[in-house]
Amino acid sequence: MSAKIFPTAQDAENAFYEALERADLEGMMAVWSEDEEIVCVHPAGQRLAGQEQVREAWRQMFAGGPGMRVQVAQQVAVTGMMVAVHSVHENITVTGEPRARPPMVATNVYLRTPAGWRMIVHHASPAPGEAAAETAPPGPAAPKILH
Amino acid sequence: MSAKIFPTAQDAENAFYEALERADLEGMMAVWSEDEEIVCVHPAGQRLAGQEQVREAWRQMFAGGPGMRVQVAQQVAVTGMMVAVHSVHENITVTGEPRARPPMVATNVYLRTPAGWRMIVHHASPAPGEAAAETAPPGPAAPKILH
Repeated sequence: MSAKIFPTAQDAENAFYEALERADLEGMMAVWSEDEEIVCVHPAGQRLAGQEQVREAWRQMFAGGPGMRVQVAQQVAVTGMMVAVHSVHENITVTGEPRARPPMVATNVYLRTPAGWRMIVHHASPAPGEAAAETAPPGPAAPKILH
Repeated sequence: MSAKIFPTAQDAENAFYEALERADLEGMMAVWSEDEEIVCVHPAGQRLAGQEQVREAWRQMFAGGPGMRVQVAQQVAVTGMMVAVHSVHENITVTGEPRARPPMVATNVYLRTPAGWRMIVHHASPAPGEAAAETAPPGPAAPKILH
């Protein structure tokens, strides 16, 4: 799994979502950094830190095999020499469900390592207000929960 | 608001949570980068991108004045020359509520700019499984929602 080299952060991101669609555990873990601290937050899930926790959660999620399509949209990216930060919307369609689920918003952080670009953070959460906000008048809708 | 210089990412993070507690809009916006793309995701909220959206959401949230204490815990940090990525748990107590709310997990990304360290991403979401997970046997709990 260490053989894969991603020449850009975008290549790593593409591989991440391909592995997610294929429920491919080795493909997924090949995207993540092996040397740095890694953090993964699934929607409504606790924080997973470190290779072991991150891998185990994907293993459980992929146990049922592939079953979803993920369309990534509206990317906002800040790209540096060594680090890239992507914010994306994930539009997920699950096999057998008639329509797409509400979008997720994900923060993905990649690091340039000696073995190419690797993911160090994936933080995803539901973005329920998105569809309404896109057709709303200027100015964002108020956040639903006081932070 | 441009006068503040944060010598480290941690200084910027401290100022972020102080501004949050004080409901201090100018203090909050002084933490954010003015030149880069910025992204803010409040718990269960849509993605806010750019100075205008981010500021307007904080303005609305701070309109009622200060009323919460935020205790930051369990930081996982990846720090580079130009970028720092912090993952933290936020334990929030709201004035008038008898007990702390369930923890939030936040991904905070900071960039080293000519004007010191500034925030470019804040992504927070509820981490409901956290308390249980901390006393659970080895291995993380399964994420609550298939991603």
